[in-house]
This record gives sequence, C-alpha cells and structure tokens, in this order.
Amino acid sequence: MIVVMKVGSPELEIERVSTELQEWGLTPEKIIGKHKVVIGLVGDTASLDPLQIQEISPWIEEVLRVEKPFKRASLEFRNGESSQVIVPTPDGAVSFGKNHPVVVVAGPCSVENEGMIVETAKRVKAAGAKFLRGGAYKPRTSPYAFQGHGESALELLAAAREATGLGIITEVMDAADLEKIAEVADVVQVGARNMQNFALLKKVGAQNKPVLLKRGMSATIDEWLMAAEYILAAGNPNVILCERGIRTFDLHYVRNTLDLSVLPVLRSLTHLPVMIDPSHGTGKAEYVPDMAKAAIAAGTDSLMIEVHPNPAKALSDGPQSLTPERFDHLMQELEVMAKVMGRWAESPMAIA
Amino acid sequence: MIVVMKVGSPELEIERVSTELQEWGLTPEKIIGKHKVVIGLVGDTASLDPLQIQEISPWIEEVLRVEKPFKRASLEFRNGESSQVIVPTPDGAVSFGKNHPVVVVAGPCSVENEGMIVETAKRVKAAGAKFLRGGAYKPRTSPYAFQGHGESALELLAAAREATGLGIITEVMDAADLEKIAEVADVVQVGARNMQNFALLKKVGAQNKPVLLKRGMSATIDEWLMAAEYILAAGNPNVILCERGIRTFDLHYVRNTLDLSVLPVLRSLTHLPVMIDPSHGTGKAEYVPDMAKAAIAAGTDSLMIEVHPNPAKALSDGPQSLTPERFDHLMQELEVMAKVMGRWAESPMAIA
Amino acid sequence: MIVVMKVGSPELEIERVSTELQEWGLTPEKIIGKHKVVIGLVGDTASLDPLQIQEISPWIEEVLRVEKPFKRASLEFRNGESSQVIVPTPDGAVSFGKNHPVVVVAGPCSVENEGMIVETAKRVKAAGAKFLRGGAYKPRTSPYAFQGHGESALELLAAAREATGLGIITEVMDAADLEKIAEVADVVQVGARNMQNFALLKKVGAQNKPVLLKRGMSATIDEWLMAAEYILAAGNPNVILCERGIRTFDLHYVRNTLDLSVLPVLRSLTHLPVMIDPSHGTGKAEYVPDMAKAAIAAGTDSLMIEVHPNPAKALSDGPQSLTPERFDHLMQELEVMAKVMGRWAESPMAIA
Amino acid sequence: MIVVMKVGSPELEIERVSTELQEWGLTPEKIIGKHKVVIGLVGDTASLDPLQIQEISPWIEEVLRVEKPFKRASLEFRNGESSQVIVPTPDGAVSFGKNHPVVVVAGPCSVENEGMIVETAKRVKAAGAKFLRGGAYKPRTSPYAFQGHGESALELLAAAREATGLGIITEVMDAADLEKIAEVADVVQVGARNMQNFALLKKVGAQNKPVLLKRGMSATIDEWLMAAEYILAAGNPNVILCERGIRTFDLHYVRNTLDLSVLPVLRSLTHLPVMIDPSHGTGKAEYVPDMAKAAIAAGTDSLMIEVHPNPAKALSDGPQSLTPERFDHLMQELEVMAKVMGRWAESPMAIA
Repeated sequence: MIVVMKVGSPELEIERVSTELQEWGLTPEKIIGKHKVVIGLVGDTASLDPLQIQEISPWIEEVLRVEKPFKRASLEFRNGESSQVIVPTPDGAVSFGKNHPVVVVAGPCSVENEGMIVETAKRVKAAGAKFLRGGAYKPRTSPYAFQGHGESALELLAAAREATGLGIITEVMDAADLEKIAEVADVVQVGARNMQNFALLKKVGAQNKPVLLKRGMSATIDEWLMAAEYILAAGNPNVILCERGIRTFDLHYVRNTLDLSVLPVLRSLTHLPVMIDPSHGTGKAEYVPDMAKAAIAAGTDSLMIEVHPNPAKALSDGPQSLTPERFDHLMQELEVMAKVMGRWAESPMAIA
Repeated sequence: MIVVMKVGSPELEIERVSTELQEWGLTPEKIIGKHKVVIGLVGDTASLDPLQIQEISPWIEEVLRVEKPFKRASLEFRNGESSQVIVPTPDGAVSFGKNHPVVVVAGPCSVENEGMIVETAKRVKAAGAKFLRGGAYKPRTSPYAFQGHGESALELLAAAREATGLGIITEVMDAADLEKIAEVADVVQVGARNMQNFALLKKVGAQNKPVLLKRGMSATIDEWLMAAEYILAAGNPNVILCERGIRTFDLHYVRNTLDLSVLPVLRSLTHLPVMIDPSHGTGKAEYVPDMAKAAIAAGTDSLMIEVHPNPAKALSDGPQSLTPERFDHLMQELEVMAKVMGRWAESPMAIA
Repeated sequence: MIVVMKVGSPELEIERVSTELQEWGLTPEKIIGKHKVVIGLVGDTASLDPLQIQEISPWIEEVLRVEKPFKRASLEFRNGESSQVIVPTPDGAVSFGKNHPVVVVAGPCSVENEGMIVETAKRVKAAGAKFLRGGAYKPRTSPYAFQGHGESALELLAAAREATGLGIITEVMDAADLEKIAEVADVVQVGARNMQNFALLKKVGAQNKPVLLKRGMSATIDEWLMAAEYILAAGNPNVILCERGIRTFDLHYVRNTLDLSVLPVLRSLTHLPVMIDPSHGTGKAEYVPDMAKAAIAAGTDSLMIEVHPNPAKALSDGPQSLTPERFDHLMQELEVMAKVMGRWAESPMAIA
Repeated sequence: MIVVMKVGSPELEIERVSTELQEWGLTPEKIIGKHKVVIGLVGDTASLDPLQIQEISPWIEEVLRVEKPFKRASLEFRNGESSQVIVPTPDGAVSFGKNHPVVVVAGPCSVENEGMIVETAKRVKAAGAKFLRGGAYKPRTSPYAFQGHGESALELLAAAREATGLGIITEVMDAADLEKIAEVADVVQVGARNMQNFALLKKVGAQNKPVLLKRGMSATIDEWLMAAEYILAAGNPNVILCERGIRTFDLHYVRNTLDLSVLPVLRSLTHLPVMIDPSHGTGKAEYVPDMAKAAIAAGTDSLMIEVHPNPAKALSDGPQSLTPERFDHLMQELEVMAKVMGRWAESPMAIA
C-alpha cells in the first residue's frame, strides 16, 4: 500500500502521518519523488481500508494498494518513478538508473594475479568503463575446478581500485566472507546460483553496500523481483538487477539465451535499475558486441562485459571474454548507440 | 562440398567443371559471389576426395567440405558471402539481406474486411513499410476460433496490393491452397507450427515465390536451418528466416521469449537473410518498440510488426498490435536506429 | 454444454431433444454412457441459458457448461466417463481405454524391407503385442536423410498384417497420402511435428480410421487437447493421445524428457485413451524398460515400443530400439506390472 | 582413476598401495565392494600413466580412468557397484540403496505446532514410513510469507522423533544453522534452490550426518552429480539424490514436471541412492499416488511424500499434501507395487 502526499506537503505533516501509521503496526518508508513524497507501507495491509488511512491527514492525496507480490520493488511503490542507485567510487559517484548514462562494468571472470587485474583495470578504464568486475570467489560446477584466489584476490582488487579509481564489483558466495568482501567492493554481487539463497539475500540486505542481483538460470521475473524484495525488506534499498541469460532448450551455439525482453518488462514492473551481461548471456565473445548494442537499444541502464588480456589463457570463461582491443572498439560502437538513446556521458570523466 | 573457382575463371570452364561433376552423380549449383564463382555440391560427397576434384581444372582454387548438417543454407556453401532475397513488388524490387536497408513488414494479424486492410496498408506504406502482412488462413489453437476468411481474404490482399504498391506476405497452412495464395502473395509464409511440416516445405520449395520461414516454438537453430534446407533442396533459393519468439519456462508477462541472439548466431552459420517479429515475439504491444530497436541494433535485415487500426477490436492478436499512430512513431525511432547502423533507405521510395 | 438425460429416458425423447437443439442452431452429439445418455452440444452456447434448455423435456436431468476450451475432448463432455477406442484388426477388435487391458504396439521406426518387417511383426505378436508400428513416410530433420520407402512400404505393412493378424499403425505426413495410408493402416498416426498442422488434423478428422495423436515437442496439455478437438470436431471420435517426451533444458543423456505426469493430468481432463512411447520418450533402449513399467504403474492405456531385429543396423532410431529378445523379456516384466494394476489380457488371444 | 585390487588382496598390501599413492600426491579412498576392494583416486591424475600405477603391486588387477566429470559420485569410481546410505534412527538403522526395500519419508511441508507434528509422525509411522519430513526453516519465494518456526520447530521435531522412533529429515538453508539442525536431524536436506550454493555444500560435506540433495529446478543431471561431488569431496560419503520436478514450459496443471527418467539415467551413471518426491514434483495431491507408483516401478530407492492432518489449513504447500487417510491407502498401493519389484520390507518393523 502506498500513501501519496500532495505536492507541497509540510515535512512535519509527513512525519506525523508516518508516525501514526507506525503506531498502526505498519512499516512506513518515505520515498522522495521528483514532485511528491510517497509513503510506502509494508505489513499486514490486507485488512486495512484505504479510506481510513486517507482520514489521517488532509495532505494525503490518495492511498493505493500494491497488487504485485513484490511490494518495495514494484514501480507502484514509488508511484511510477524509477529509482537510481548511486555508488561512490574513488573517481566519484556513479549513478545507475533510467535517467542516467549507461554504466559499463568490465573486467575478467576471475582475478588471476596482480599484473593482469591492474592491466585490465587500466585498459577498461581508458575505454570508458566505470567499474571493474573480477571474481575472488568463483562458483564453479566442479569442486576440482579453480575456485578463485579468495582473500588474496580481494587485495588485488583493492590495488586495481587504487591504481585506477574504478569501482569494484565482486561476488559473495558465502555469508562468512561478506564483511571482508564489502571492505573492498563498491557493489556486492549475488550470483545466479544464489538468487534464491534466501539466507544470503537477508545478509546482503542487512549491510550497506549496493547489491547486484543476477537472475537465476531459470528464475521467472516474479521470482527475481521477489529475491530483490528480500534485500529491500532487509533494509538495503540499493539493488541493481542483472540479466545474464536463461536456460532454454537450445544451447548448442550459446551458453545461455539472453533474455533482452526483460528490459521493457522490468520497466513496467519495477523502479530498480537493470544491467545486462551479454558475456554470460551468450557465452561467446563473438556474439557479445551485437547483444551489447541491442541491450542499449532496448534501454538497459548498464552493461557488464568480460574482458581479459589473454582470453585463450584465462583460468575461467575465456571463450566469452573480449580482448582489451576488441573492448576498445566495442566501446566506440556502444557510444554511438547510447548517444542515439541519449544515454552516454559526454566525457567519460564528466560523471565523476 | 564446395568448389571455389579462381578469380577470372572463364564461363565456359565453369560450365565444363559443372558438367563433369554432374556426371559424377553430384548436383552442382553455381553461386556467383562478389569476386569469385563457387560451385556448391550436394549429394553423396562423403566418399569423394577433394584432391580428385581439384584435378578437374587448373581454374579450381580450392575444394572444401561443408561440415554442417545444413549444406545449401550454410555460410560455407557460399564461401562466406551472405545472400540476398530480391522480391519484386508493384513498387519495384525490394532486397532482403545484410548489405541492404532494413525492410519493414507491417499489417494486421488477420485480414478482416476490405476497409480495414486497405486502410492499414495505406497507413503502413506511408510510414515506410515495404510489405503488408495479413492472414487469410490462420492457424488457431481452437477449432472454434476464427480461422481466417480464406480465399475471399486473398482478394482483399490483392486489392490492398493494388491500392498501395506494397508487396504481400501471407501464410500457407495447407498445400492445397498454395497455388491460389502464390497468385496474390509476393512472399509465402510458413508458420511456426508448420516449420517441420516437411510435406509443406517440399511444396513451397518447388514453387517460385520467396518463402518466409518462421522458427518453430521450440526449434533449435539447427532444426530451423534444416527446415530451410528442405526448401533450398527442393529448388527454391529464396528463403528468409523469421525469429518470432521461443517457448521458455517464463511466459507470465510475455507470450514468447524473443531470442535476439539468433542474429549473431545465424550470421556466423548461414548466408540467408533474417527477419525479427517482435509482435509475436513478446505478445504485448507495449514491449514491441524496445525489441524492434534492439533487433536493428543487433543487425536484423527485416522486421515484421503487427499493426491494426483498432487493436481492441481485432479478431486475433489484438494485444500485440500497434495502432497506426504508434507505428508511425515507431518508424521514426527505427529510422534513427537504422541510420546509425547504416541500414535505412534514404527515401522510402528510393529503393523501388 | 452438455445435457444429461435421466436414467431410462425413452430413445424417442432423446431424439426429440436432439432435433429441437439442432433447430436452435447447435450440433448435438449423443454419447451413450454406462447408465445415462448425455447430449453434448457444440456451437455458440455462450448466450444460451441452461434453464431454457432444461424446459425442453422433463427427461432432462441437468444442463451443464463445459468450462474447458476443449469441449468434445473434455471429461465433462462425457459427464465424467472415459471413452474407449475400438479398433478392428484381422485378429479381432482391440479396445484402448481405462477399463481395458494395456495394449502394446511394437515394431521398427521404419519399414526397411519385407523380411525385417514380417519377422519383426511375428516376433512382437508372439510376445503379446496387438499392433505393429512401422514408418512408411518418415519425418526427418534432414532432407538428405532416409525419408521412408513410402508407398512400397505400405505394401510391406499390409503383408505383415496379413501374415500376423496384427493391426497396423503408421504415420501420415502429407494429406495427399492419407487415402492410401488409410487403406493399410488400422490406426493413422499424426506425428509430434504435425500436432498443430491444422489442415492435416481436419483431414484425419474427416476420415474413418482411428487417429493416434502424438504430443508436440513443446505442446502444452491444453494445446494437445485442442489438437484432438480439431479431429473430434471434424467428425472422428476415435482419438488416442500419445506422449512421446517433451523438450527440456537437459537432453544430454535422454533425447526427450518423458512426461509421465500427463497420465493423472489427462485422466482428470479428458475421456480419451492415452498411450506412452518410452522409446522416443527417452531415445535410449536401456532406459525404455524402466519407463515402460512406470507408465503402466501410472495407469497408461497403451504402450508404443520400438523393436528392431538388428538395432545397430537400423536405418533410423537404432539407439532407441529393443532387440526382439529384449522385448520378449520386457513383455514378461510388463505382464507382472500390468496384472498388479488389473490391466492385462488373460491370454494374448482372448481379447480378439 | 580407480585401482581395482584382485580378489583376496591382503589388507596390508592394500594399505601399502594406498600409502604409496598418497606419496604421489593423490587422495586414495578405499571402497570395499562385494568381492573386491577398489581404491579411488582423486587429484591430478591426467598426467599419470595407468601402467605405472599397475607396477606398484602384483595384487592390482587393473587401473581405470573415470571419464566423467564427477569422480567420487560416478558408478565407475565404485567399479559398477551401487552404494548404500545407512542412517541410524531411534528405531534402528535404515538403509537407502538399490538392494534395499523402498524407504518412505513422509510428513508436512512445515512444522506448525507440536500437536500436528507428533500426530502426523504417529500416523505416517503406523502406515509404514521410516522418516518424518518437516521444515523448520522454509525457503519461501516471498520475504513476507511464513518462513518456518526455526529453532523452536527443531525442538518439536525432536519430540516427534522421540515419540515415534522415526528418523528426521529437515532442510538447512543457512550454514549458521547447520550445527543445531544436525543435532536433531538424522538426514540433513539441501533444497533445490541451494543445489549450487557451493559454500553450503562444502559445509554439509564437512559434517557427519547423511545429506539429502534435491535437484535444482533446472539443474542438468551433470550439474546435480557435480553438486553431490562437492559433498563427497568434502569428506561426507553419505549422499542421497532427490528428484523433485523440473521447470518446463508447461506448468498449467502441475507445479513442476517430475522427471522419472532420472531413475534409469542415474542408475547408469552413479552409485548413489535416489529418492523421488512426487509431492513437489507435481504440486497436486491428486497426482501424487500415480507418480509414487510409477517411481517404484521405475526403480526408486525411496519416496518423499507430503502428508498433513488438514491440507486445507496448511501454512505451506497444502494443495500437494495428502491427508493421513489418503496416505494410509497409498501405502497399501505402494506395498503391492514394491513387492512386485522385490523392494518392500516384509514387516514395517522388521527393518529396524
């Protein structure tokens, strides 16, 4: 349920309404929109009569039910206004959202050694990326495969961050590692395999760093938004949704089927910003550029692209990684496309 | 197997090589590329030694095996050159292919009456479409649902063709109707449900009109290309592939999952032109524009978009149809996008 | 809509009611159940008031709407009673249905030559099969693969029929072949790829031979029953549904995922008999016996099992074919299982 | 790689071979089969020459490579012999495995209160179940749905265990709860959503209680066995695999598509015991009995069935729960089926 306050409602009145609703046993959340303030209500609202709430204050414009199973994540909860996730990085704050330039995240699948991660960071930064991705802890199908360098990789990410000013995005697989990851990461990633690891969702929801929530391999849109809801409900409002390809019947040529239709669908359902990962989404470097361009044309807020200085020797996901040269070229193509969409930062530095 | 002839091979020598290969029991097809002529060979080539063929003529540059199960449809069969499908229409020939402007096909799901089909044709023509789509025979899940007006609808399509100069694309469901459909249609469509109706494929392959082959709901890329191969093998070289969404586990918000990754995948496998149908691909008018733009960004050669003068009253597929006004606006958006890709005809008339 | 007549309604009164309903523009179908007669009504019943129909005769017990999109195929249309499909064969009539013994259909994927088909027919007959399956016209993914021996194979099937007394089940792919197939076949099969070839469905519905309707690779239960409805609506009441595995995300070890849950689901939705094909359903001979037993335990009315005298040399589907020896052994296992279920003919001959 | 020792190899010699292989940097695991001892080797075996190992001892019969990506879970690793998981319960040890009676696990989705859990336990015990299932911690799509009573529910499970002598199976979602769950549970369950929560797999692998590993909603067989491999590799050899339905394109009538073909497939790949859960597998109580019977016919080692004293009032999964009366009846049906398969304990008590 949401309570839409009239334009110009006095701050004190908004507080009063919130306090009263709290006394009714609800959890009010104040959402400041462009023109109006909305008070989102979560709790046992089924039995409440909107008219009864309306009577609390003459400054209340209307009281509406959120029909979707996801409440805080729904577009209705913000009265139709999209939200932005602002991430502080060494080079300044970067905003993810519908009214901001497309944010490019790039880097290798795994952090392999200091040389490669710092070199890659410098290259992707020079090309216009704002964030470095790189796995310290890697979810691998086999227990015998390279599992990531763990804690020591975190230090290398910190070094790359310091050397370039890029923000860091890295995955947490085990709640026990969350604290040390959050010390280095600017955005904490929950991977596709853990999208419904509810214990982990609650924990990333209870800390401060923004969360990148990848869609599970066969997660419906509703399940994905409900997973986001777990994080929001635990108190962390900064969630970015990342589509990374779904599992279908035909995976002969691609590793996953990249579902770009999530872009208009999510736009009609949620205020949260959306990222597309065409690298995992296709699993082949040669298909990444076309899908990255398509994602921008369809309105993505962000892209995650795997870049490795030497894909053939990568410890993981080499086939889907671009070389730094190919990435440079792609960024030029993306710039043209994003400018048409009015979604490119004039100068890569300007946004900082 | 393909025989690549050297640049400047004399016409007579090419004929001689073809004749000799025919005597070996093979079916040679001459393919004239930009610089070279290639002779494609279909038949029992497994036991042949490429070196033995090489000896036929000093003008043979090389002899290569086509490893894919689809032969004539494969990119290798044309030595890496994409093909074009040229369709004569009252307004002149329209070319579908990688090196041509994006061709837009638009119109209603079904032909309902003369007024609506002629009106729609005029509107989509004015907006820049080159072809009118419209079903005379409709595949419907229920035997009790409207099955299309059949033969009388064909006459209405002919009238719309004459009134506007647009080419006509309409579906054949029953081989018994093929002849009368081909009298009106400039392109004959085989629908998703008949993609592996091999009897029908053979028959559309044995007539002259170009064929639009929609992907089956759960057809793999290989199965789709093999279906095209049936048409090519029957003698019709003019096949356009149309992606219209696949069946996945999550169809709550969309009717199908539009698989745009077919664009780079098909580009790496086949020389045939590709069309994207975001209307069936999503099933909801509000998602069509973003997916149409994405399709262009990913390199589609053509788009098929449902337009109806009054979607709310459409006899079929109303929810996924755009109004003519929305279509006008979309065409302007597509023009911007296609120009960035270098894929828009300078003037809608120029191509004729 | 159905009109349930009271127990003991005079034949003449039932006729009178039917005639009157026909005059109302409806298509009444008399269905004779164990205790009561039901008149099924198809047509524009949406606007009809059940009470109005009730008034036609005091012998009408009740008038009920069929809520499902499939009408004639629904269990409600027969007032909850399952139907049987009785197929005359040289050895006598064989009944498919819930209250009959499990009918086993066996034979090779394709008819290869007279020796093999007659030998196989004798072997499967001796083991207890009632029908011989064998493809004369084969749907093959590749136009270059063996397409079946066609008309000459039909003659061989006729020979095998005469030699053994078995009924014949063979597939029709092209309506043009229907007449000559129906001369030989006791049951005409529509394959998975043609499940929504509506032109073909209408034609098999307009002839007299019972139809075996295979489920499409990604057909929903509703679509499958609607396909059956096309046949029923065209006038042929004898439809057997055959599950043959669906397409899922994991086809590494199996060719399809056999969906045995269709058995209880269909039982709750339709009166039509059901067959399970574990050979196509798994694609591997070694998995067939366990799935055949499971199908019986779950209540199937019939089984279709591929048997080939020399699977390693089969022209098609060798890997999923049992040897005659393995089939003999399986029939013994099935007998034990079917007896527990009360679904085995005391003597293989007794049913004739 | 496995080292098969000759029949009658002296214990000391087996130890000597193991020790030597350990010195080579490998991790040998002694597996005692019916007739022979096999030493399984995990580690960097790619570069090893089997002949070189053969030379270690004349008691070595042969040295074979395990070609599958899963090693310890593969049937080859035990030289083709299936394993058993023996679980001590208050009523005695219960064995899961191919050569043992079918073990039935029953109980409610969630533990709701002491009365219902103890009552249900008594009822399912009386009907022949060996284990009580019941969720203390529940994975729920919505953060606002009932999440299970947690720690207090564990106490109630302990009470039901004491009251009936049944073993307890309950799910762990958070590694932080593992210790207290393992105090009560005889088998610890990892749910479908956590099948690739590798952090959790490592932790349940590092403790002593047997683990029930549910298949992920869209997990391939290989991924599932690799998840089991994580547990085995962490030192816990007692893993039971549980199929609970997969996600497909048609979930209109069922909640999941129960994939019974895993039974013959897993039998050919792994030595681990298999359980089938027809309750989650179909999501509807009325479909459970047929699928339970089919599972036994296809060779399952165990069944998990949801039973609730009042399904209509269940806090979760009511629609798929049987009443105790329906469960009593089902157990009689299962007994008949399992006896045919030679898989039923003569007296429910006898096995204890």
